[in-house]
Amino acid sequence: MILSKPKIAIVVGSKSDLQIIKGCEKILNEFNVDYDLKVLSAHRTPVETQQFAQNADKVYDLIIAGAGKAAHLPGVIASYTILPVIGLPIKSSTLDGIDSLLSIVQMPKGIPVATVAIDGAENAALLACHILTLKYPYIKELLVNYRKRMADEVLS
Amino acid sequence: MILSKPKIAIVVGSKSDLQIIKGCEKILNEFNVDYDLKVLSAHRTPVETQQFAQNADKVYDLIIAGAGKAAHLPGVIASYTILPVIGLPIKSSTLDGIDSLLSIVQMPKGIPVATVAIDGAENAALLACHILTLKYPYIKELLVNYRKRMADEVLS
Amino acid sequence: MILSKPKIAIVVGSKSDLQIIKGCEKILNEFNVDYDLKVLSAHRTPVETQQFAQNADKVYDLIIAGAGKAAHLPGVIASYTILPVIGLPIKSSTLDGIDSLLSIVQMPKGIPVATVAIDGAENAALLACHILTLKYPYIKELLVNYRKRMADEVLS
Amino acid sequence: MILSKPKIAIVVGSKSDLQIIKGCEKILNEFNVDYDLKVLSAHRTPVETQQFAQNADKVYDLIIAGAGKAAHLPGVIASYTILPVIGLPIKSSTLDGIDSLLSIVQMPKGIPVATVAIDGAENAALLACHILTLKYPYIKELLVNYRKRMADEVLS
Amino acid sequence: MILSKPKIAIVVGSKSDLQIIKGCEKILNEFNVDYDLKVLSAHRTPVETQQFAQNADKVYDLIIAGAGKAAHLPGVIASYTILPVIGLPIKSSTLDGIDSLLSIVQMPKGIPVATVAIDGAENAALLACHILTLKYPYIKELLVNYRKRMADEVLS
Amino acid sequence: MILSKPKIAIVVGSKSDLQIIKGCEKILNEFNVDYDLKVLSAHRTPVETQQFAQNADKVYDLIIAGAGKAAHLPGVIASYTILPVIGLPIKSSTLDGIDSLLSIVQMPKGIPVATVAIDGAENAALLACHILTLKYPYIKELLVNYRKRMADEVLS
Amino acid sequence: MILSKPKIAIVVGSKSDLQIIKGCEKILNEFNVDYDLKVLSAHRTPVETQQFAQNADKVYDLIIAGAGKAAHLPGVIASYTILPVIGLPIKSSTLDGIDSLLSIVQMPKGIPVATVAIDGAENAALLACHILTLKYPYIKELLVNYRKRMADEVLS
Amino acid sequence: MILSKPKIAIVVGSKSDLQIIKGCEKILNEFNVDYDLKVLSAHRTPVETQQFAQNADKVYDLIIAGAGKAAHLPGVIASYTILPVIGLPIKSSTLDGIDSLLSIVQMPKGIPVATVAIDGAENAALLACHILTLKYPYIKELLVNYRKRMADEVLS
Repeated sequence: MILSKPKIAIVVGSKSDLQIIKGCEKILNEFNVDYDLKVLSAHRTPVETQQFAQNADKVYDLIIAGAGKAAHLPGVIASYTILPVIGLPIKSSTLDGIDSLLSIVQMPKGIPVATVAIDGAENAALLACHILTLKYPYIKELLVNYRKRMADEVLS
Repeated sequence: MILSKPKIAIVVGSKSDLQIIKGCEKILNEFNVDYDLKVLSAHRTPVETQQFAQNADKVYDLIIAGAGKAAHLPGVIASYTILPVIGLPIKSSTLDGIDSLLSIVQMPKGIPVATVAIDGAENAALLACHILTLKYPYIKELLVNYRKRMADEVLS
Repeated sequence: MILSKPKIAIVVGSKSDLQIIKGCEKILNEFNVDYDLKVLSAHRTPVETQQFAQNADKVYDLIIAGAGKAAHLPGVIASYTILPVIGLPIKSSTLDGIDSLLSIVQMPKGIPVATVAIDGAENAALLACHILTLKYPYIKELLVNYRKRMADEVLS
Repeated sequence: MILSKPKIAIVVGSKSDLQIIKGCEKILNEFNVDYDLKVLSAHRTPVETQQFAQNADKVYDLIIAGAGKAAHLPGVIASYTILPVIGLPIKSSTLDGIDSLLSIVQMPKGIPVATVAIDGAENAALLACHILTLKYPYIKELLVNYRKRMADEVLS
Repeated sequence: MILSKPKIAIVVGSKSDLQIIKGCEKILNEFNVDYDLKVLSAHRTPVETQQFAQNADKVYDLIIAGAGKAAHLPGVIASYTILPVIGLPIKSSTLDGIDSLLSIVQMPKGIPVATVAIDGAENAALLACHILTLKYPYIKELLVNYRKRMADEVLS
Repeated sequence: MILSKPKIAIVVGSKSDLQIIKGCEKILNEFNVDYDLKVLSAHRTPVETQQFAQNADKVYDLIIAGAGKAAHLPGVIASYTILPVIGLPIKSSTLDGIDSLLSIVQMPKGIPVATVAIDGAENAALLACHILTLKYPYIKELLVNYRKRMADEVLS
Repeated sequence: MILSKPKIAIVVGSKSDLQIIKGCEKILNEFNVDYDLKVLSAHRTPVETQQFAQNADKVYDLIIAGAGKAAHLPGVIASYTILPVIGLPIKSSTLDGIDSLLSIVQMPKGIPVATVAIDGAENAALLACHILTLKYPYIKELLVNYRKRMADEVLS
Repeated sequence: MILSKPKIAIVVGSKSDLQIIKGCEKILNEFNVDYDLKVLSAHRTPVETQQFAQNADKVYDLIIAGAGKAAHLPGVIASYTILPVIGLPIKSSTLDGIDSLLSIVQMPKGIPVATVAIDGAENAALLACHILTLKYPYIKELLVNYRKRMADEVLS
C-alpha cells in the first residue's frame, strides 16, 4: 500500500466518547494529518469492529482507539491488525478511569497497545504524529515547531 | 437445540491458566456437569475465539471464561453469543488480579459478564450450576446437598 | 414449581438505591420479564431478608440484588437460596463504588454471586435475561434483536 | 443477664482463619478473659450464624468476628445482636486484605462494626478488653500494666 | 469513678469537621447520651490533646474521635487513655477518605482504635451506644427500639 | 538520516532492570532489529540522559525506556527527542509497579509516552516492531508470522 | 554564596497550577521569606528547567516544585541541584492526585524529594520555613508564634 | 544552640524497623553525620516520644522518623518540635506500605512532614544531608562527590 499522505483512524466505543476526542482532532488538524473518525464497539458491534480492524492496514497508517470502563476496544483491534494501535483510556462515571487504564495497558504478551494518559486525547494524537515521522519525515519539523510553541507558551 | 444433559465450555486465555481451572473441574465433576476445556486467547487467536463464541450456543448451555491482566476474553466471547458468560479474573504476576477483575466486571452497557472473585474457580463452576438449575432442575438437589456438606464441614 | 412466564425479584438495600434500579426496570419491561421490586436490608431487616431469600425459589427464577458500601445483601441472599443471584454494586458517597464491588464480587468459596459493573443496572437486567434463556428459550430472539438494535444505534 | 466474669465469643468464617486468631487468644488469656471460639460462616452456615448471633447476648459480653475476602461475617452478626461487634479483616490470597477491610468497615448507617487493622488479631482482643472495662473495672489495671510492659519493651 | 448517666466525648481535629459530626449528635440525643464536643488537633494542639486524653477517664465513658487526611487524632488519643476510642475517618478534598481510613484503622499492635466507615458519623455514635450497654443496660432497649424503627422504615 | 536497517535504543534506569529487559532482547533478536542497550538514570545521570536523548534521532528509529518506582526516565527522554518513546513500567519492591505505571503513562499534554504493561518487556519490543513497519515494511511479514506462531502455540 | 536573607524558588509545571500555589505564597509572605515564582515544565521546557536547576544554588536556599499527573518536575530539578527540593503533588482532573503523589514521592535511591500532601501548598511553604531555620535561626521564633496562633485558632 | 558538627536523630516505632534503617546509617556514616538511633512509639510510648520531641531542638539539627502501618510517629514528633522532620514510610505485612505512606505524607495544614519513598531509608538520610547543607556548607562538596560516584556507577 502506498499512501500519498498520512492517514489514521480514530475509533471510539461510544458516541459519548466523541467529546473527549476533540482534543485528538485539534492536534491532527494542526499537523495536517488526515483521519477517519468511527464509532465501533468491541462488544456491541464486534463483527464490524473485526472487519474494520482486519482491513485497516489497507487504508491507514495507524489507529487510535479510545474507550471507557472495561475498555477492550484498543486490544481487540490490535488483535486483528499489525498496525500500531494507540490506546486512549477514557474516564467514565465511576473509578476515575483506572478501570479503562488497566484494561488497555495491561495487555498480555504478544499484542501490545501503546497507551497514553487517562483522557489524554491530545497526547494520543501527538504520539501518532511521532510514530508517523518514521514514514513521513516532514512531520518532524512540525513536531519541533509544536514543541517550540509549547515552550514559548510555558515561558511567556 | 435440545441437550440431553448439561454441557458447558470452559475457556482460558493461556495454558498457564489451566492450573487455577482445576478448581472449576473438581466442582463440575462433582455435579456431573459435562464440559469442554479450551485454550483460546482473545488477542492471540481472535478469529478462533470468535468462531468458538459464535457457534457456542449450538453445543453449550453456558460458558466460563477465565483470563488475567487486561482480561478481555470473557467480554469478547460475550459479545458474540447470547449464552450466559461467567467471567473468572485470574491473578497474574503484578497488581494482584485487580486489573483482571476490572477488565472483566466493568463491562459497558449492553454486554454483561457474570463475574466471580479473583481466582474464584470453584465459584465460577458453582455459579454455572446455579444457572443450570433453570433448565436442569435435578441440579437443585445436588446444590442443596453440596451446601449441607459445606455447612457440616464448617461446623465439624 | 412451574412458572408460566419468567419472574424475577429485584432487591435493594435502601430506598436511595431505587433511582439506579430504573435502568434494570427499563430493560426488564423491554424484555417483558415480570419482576417484584423490594427494599430489604441485609443489616437493618435481616430476618425479613432471610425469609425472603429462603422462600424465593417458590416464586422467582432468579434474584438481582443491589447495594452500596459494605454491600452484603447479594451474598447474604445467596447464602439462603440456590437461585442464581446477580449482584449489582452501587456507588455511594465515598470510594466511588470500589467498596461495593469488592464486598459483592470477592465472595468466598461455596456461595457465588454473579457480579456486574458498578452502577451497571442495565447489565444486571440483561444478565438476568441471558440466564432466563435456559428456561424460556423465546427470550433468545429478544436478545438477538436487542443486540441488533444496539449495533444499529452504534453504527448510525 | 448477670455474668460473674467477662465472657466473649470469637467467631471466624473458616478453619483457615484459626491461625491468625491465635493472636487474639494470647491476649485474652493474658487478661484472663474467658472466650468461646467458633467457626461459623455467614455464607455457608447462615442459619447457624443467625442463631448464634440472636442468642449471643444471653451468654457473651461482646463478639469478635474475623473473616477474609467479601467478609460479611461481622456485619451479619451485628445485624442480629445489640452486643458490640469487633470486626477483624483477614488477609487472603489476593488483594492484600483490602477487600476484607472495606467489606467490614464500610457498614451502612444503622449497624456499626468496630473494625481493627488487617490481620490485627491482638488489637481485636485488646479492643475487647478496653470495652469490657465498662462492666469489669478490674480490667483497667490490667490494661495499664499491659501498656507499661509494652512501653518497657519498646524502651529497652 | 461513678457516673450517674453515660457521658462521652466527641473530638474532632478541625472546625471544618463539625458538620459531619451532626450525624453523631443526632443519634446521641436520640439515645439521651450526654456528650461534650471538642475541637482538638493531634498536630496543632498536641499538648491539649494529650491533657484531654490523659484525664478523659475521669469524666467520660468513651471517646469518639473524627479526623481527615493523615488522621492521627484517634490513635494519639488512644495512646493516652484506656477508654475505648472510636475512630471516625472523615473524607477530605482528595483521595476520598481512604487516607483517613488507613491512618485510623491500621493501628499497630497494642493500641486499638474501633474504626467505623468513612463519614459514618451515625455509626460512630451507634457503636458508642452498643458499647455503653455494658455499663448502662437500659440502652439495650433503646437500641432494640431503634432497630425496630429502622426496619419499619426500610419495609414501609 | 538514512538507516540501512532498523536500529533502536533500549535504556533502563538501573542495572537491576537489565534482567527484565531480556524479554525485549529476545523479541528484537527474533525480528532481527538491531539495538543498543544503555543504563542511564534520569536522576543519577541527568546530563548523560539529556545528551543521549538530544542526539538519539541521529542514530535510532525509536527508544524503549524502562524504569521503576517514580519512573521518570521515559518522560524525560521524550522531552528531549521527537523519536517515539515506548515506556516500560518495571515493578520494584513495593506497590507492585503501580507507581511506575502511573509515573510513565500519566504524562501531561504535549509529551506522550507509549506505555505498555508493567514488566511487559516483550510487548515493549513488539510495539517497537509494529511502529518500525512504517519505515521498514518487511517487518510486517515477520509480525504476521510471529502472530501465526503465537496462535499455533495457543491452539496446540 | 552569602544570602542576606532567605530566598527560595517556587516552580510549577503549568500556569494552571498557579492557583494552588497561592497557599504557598500566603505562608511565605507571612514568614517574610522572599521567593521567585516560575513556570517551568520538566517536559515542555526541559532545557530551561535544567538551566534553572543547575544554577539555582547560586541564588536560592531551597526549591519548592509543584506538579500534577506524571509529576516529574520535582525529581528532575532535584537531579540537577544539591539544594533541598520540596515536592508538592497537585491533584489534576483524574485519579485524585495519587498519580502526582507517587510520581514525586517514590524517587529511587540517590535523589530524594521532600514530599508533602496532595495540594498541600501551605505545608510545602511551612516545610521550607522549618528547613530554613538551620541557616536563619530567627525563623524559629516565627514558627513558634505561628504554631501558637494555630493552636489558639483550634481552641477558640 | 551551637553545634560543632551536624547531629541528627533517627527514631523508629519498633525494633523490627531497625533492619530497614541500616540504609540510613550507611549514608550518614558515609557523610560523617553523627546520629542517635532511638526506638520510640507514638502509641506505645507517647510520653517518652513527646519528651524526646519537645527537647530535640536542643540536641539535634533535624529528625528522621520511620514507621509502618498507621504511621503516626513522624507527624506526632513534628507536632512537638520546629525541627525539620523527615518521614520514612516502612512497608509492613499488608498493603505494601501504602498505609504508611498516606499516614505520613497526608499531614493536615500546619504541621508538614518531609516524606520520602516507602522503605527509602537511604533517601531519608540523603535528604537530611541536603537540608544540613544550609548550616554545614562543607556537606555540599560531599553531596557533589556522592553524585559523581553514583553517576560513575550507573555509567560503568
